[in-house]
Amino acid sequence: METIYEKTATSPVNIAVIKYWGKRDTTLILPTNASLSVTLSQDHLHSKTTIRASPDFEKTRLWLNGVEDVDIEKNKRLQNCFRETRRLRKEYEEKLRKDKGPDKVLPLSEYNLHICSENNFPTAAGLASSASGFACLVYTLSQLYELPISAAELSKIARQGSGSACRSLFGGFVAWEMGSKDDGSDSQAVEIAPRDHWPELEALICIVSDAKKGVSSTEGMQNTVNTSTLLQHRIEHVVPVRMKNMIDAIHERDFQKFAEITMQDSNQFHAVCLDTFPPIFYLNDVSRAIIRMITEYNSTNSEKKLKAAYTFDAGPNAVIYTTSENIPEIINLIAKYFPGNDDVKNYFSDPFQLFVGKTIGEQPLPLGFNDQIIPVFPKGSVKQILHTKVGDGPKVVVGESEGLLNNQGISYSNN
Amino acid sequence: METIYEKTATSPVNIAVIKYWGKRDTTLILPTNASLSVTLSQDHLHSKTTIRASPDFEKTRLWLNGVEDVDIEKNKRLQNCFRETRRLRKEYEEKLRKDKGPDKVLPLSEYNLHICSENNFPTAAGLASSASGFACLVYTLSQLYELPISAAELSKIARQGSGSACRSLFGGFVAWEMGSKDDGSDSQAVEIAPRDHWPELEALICIVSDAKKGVSSTEGMQNTVNTSTLLQHRIEHVVPVRMKNMIDAIHERDFQKFAEITMQDSNQFHAVCLDTFPPIFYLNDVSRAIIRMITEYNSTNSEKKLKAAYTFDAGPNAVIYTTSENIPEIINLIAKYFPGNDDVKNYFSDPFQLFVGKTIGEQPLPLGFNDQIIPVFPKGSVKQILHTKVGDGPKVVVGESEGLLNNQGISYSNN
Repeated sequence: METIYEKTATSPVNIAVIKYWGKRDTTLILPTNASLSVTLSQDHLHSKTTIRASPDFEKTRLWLNGVEDVDIEKNKRLQNCFRETRRLRKEYEEKLRKDKGPDKVLPLSEYNLHICSENNFPTAAGLASSASGFACLVYTLSQLYELPISAAELSKIARQGSGSACRSLFGGFVAWEMGSKDDGSDSQAVEIAPRDHWPELEALICIVSDAKKGVSSTEGMQNTVNTSTLLQHRIEHVVPVRMKNMIDAIHERDFQKFAEITMQDSNQFHAVCLDTFPPIFYLNDVSRAIIRMITEYNSTNSEKKLKAAYTFDAGPNAVIYTTSENIPEIINLIAKYFPGNDDVKNYFSDPFQLFVGKTIGEQPLPLGFNDQIIPVFPKGSVKQILHTKVGDGPKVVVGESEGLLNNQGISYSNN
Repeated sequence: METIYEKTATSPVNIAVIKYWGKRDTTLILPTNASLSVTLSQDHLHSKTTIRASPDFEKTRLWLNGVEDVDIEKNKRLQNCFRETRRLRKEYEEKLRKDKGPDKVLPLSEYNLHICSENNFPTAAGLASSASGFACLVYTLSQLYELPISAAELSKIARQGSGSACRSLFGGFVAWEMGSKDDGSDSQAVEIAPRDHWPELEALICIVSDAKKGVSSTEGMQNTVNTSTLLQHRIEHVVPVRMKNMIDAIHERDFQKFAEITMQDSNQFHAVCLDTFPPIFYLNDVSRAIIRMITEYNSTNSEKKLKAAYTFDAGPNAVIYTTSENIPEIINLIAKYFPGNDDVKNYFSDPFQLFVGKTIGEQPLPLGFNDQIIPVFPKGSVKQILHTKVGDGPKVVVGESEGLLNNQGISYSNN
């Protein structure tokens, strides 16, 4: 019986607090500005990928959330990741052959692959599944190929799959340095601070119901580059200052500064979307009401300190960063103004057991909160509230039950 | 019996195509950038003001839409307009005294005033009633006082009542030159082209239902000045170019250029509102769907020419500029996707008899229009469609039935 060459790993979702919007090179995926994100815990959100290499596989195959993608040959971004990791594996094999002798080296770079990737959150939720997915693909390949390279190096490959995937190669607080070279060799992710640097920082994700699919970020950001008369000013004059201040805020665990920049940069990202022609809209009436609610919530602090920060990516979902002590108040506010459908457990699973014996949405409002600031929205306007924390980077998982491929190397959920 | 010193006049609404947003002097109301508007026909939208001066009036009184404003002493903007027109009247009286003798001069500048002002459109509709209202106040005063000054001079006084009121002193196409002097003496409105310069240009106004009252423009624009990191770039680099191009577009009756700048500048105005901290939102889901609808409508033109342009002020209402031949198609589209409540006549009065024997909202869609681009909204999402054209500046109205004050100089609708 043959040995199976297979690895399984998971990778986290990251949510930017300084937004990436615009490419200066669309093939290499080089951004027009630096960005910065927080990596979320994989306990609640992750992509998981199993990759097997075998000389018996007739071709490379990929299953994504149980459905085989039969067009992977045409998927340039996927091919970028395969090509770059294979190239590194080949170099490594050549080195091993020299160092240890030719019979000690497995020619994995020549084998076809079977890849199965799944998210533990609904793709339709509009979370950035391509970031965690591509990060997981590249990381799992690097583990299968035993590549002797750093996460920063690896991030340059993931970047060529999906720009913001590079930031999912690290845990904690991560900057994507835009770089200046034409070949992209200095456009990489780096860790600003590890996961446990700021343990009080937590995140709430509001999955917002939205009828229509917005413009894809790939298409949208280049429309902004081509038509917005404000984007260039953002790139040259606003983001560099914000990056510096945000890195300081994180190092100093200064929530006031962190929250202010986070909200301002989310606002500005959506502002340049609106300055695009034709304009791009990702926020809907529910998103905007969440912004009003958080703004009002922040105004209730007697010392005028910010207690929570909203941020929105290319969709209507809100991510709210706050510190531990405010979490119950904010969840209660969300549940009051944006009540879920009748299935409470699905609406909010309360992973940290904060509402045992209490009904969310029915607790007292914060002192001084103007309860008329927004109306109570129809049930299901927010479909789900996820509560999570800052998390680690990609990791290999072991154990027989963890792999996503069966004995024949086919996705369990193949259909 | 005493002679009655009274004048009645009407003034138009103007809708900016290059937006005014930001003051460099909040007392004199000096803007941070130039702006440009189209004056709409007074047949459908106007303010009307009757002003009577009498030595018998114990104090100056003002009725606005039938309700007396008892706090006019505290209203600085109103007092600015009174003070400036009175000062000019006083100068004029002194001149007349010198030229014609003291007994030929009525000391109107010393009399108290009774003022009654009404709009023929609902204030709650969120149209810029303060612009037409202040223009009408200042114009009517100038007529009552027989002031020998130009409309441009008068616009500087109206500007001190409400910034954009200065643009309602002219018909047709009007620029508000920002000026550079600290005393505001060069910040005035000028006519770019008269009403009949571009007779094909018409306007549709969609009155959009909105539960919540947004931030007032007075408050909002200064928040933008103080917190947006994009506004300064707009002021210095974007608006000057757009002003020049827009003036050219109007002179050349180039609808393509006119429409593109109009939509881009509306988008950018709302973008800088969103870049404000906390952000200001005026567009709601209905506004955004109207933008999508017009964008799709423009894409149906086989020559890629723009056929319609949307613009939005500090509220959710859409104003759509187009040329005569497209009006029926666009009204039909609005009525299909944003049907009115059951009272059809109130929804769309069809002032130009375009739909005689036809049901609006049920006519064929333009060839190539993707009818899935937006959903059909609930009835009443657009409350009313107004169809109007480019119009003239303020004018005096005569006739016994026109005045708004009764024999005693009291508002007819006093309550």
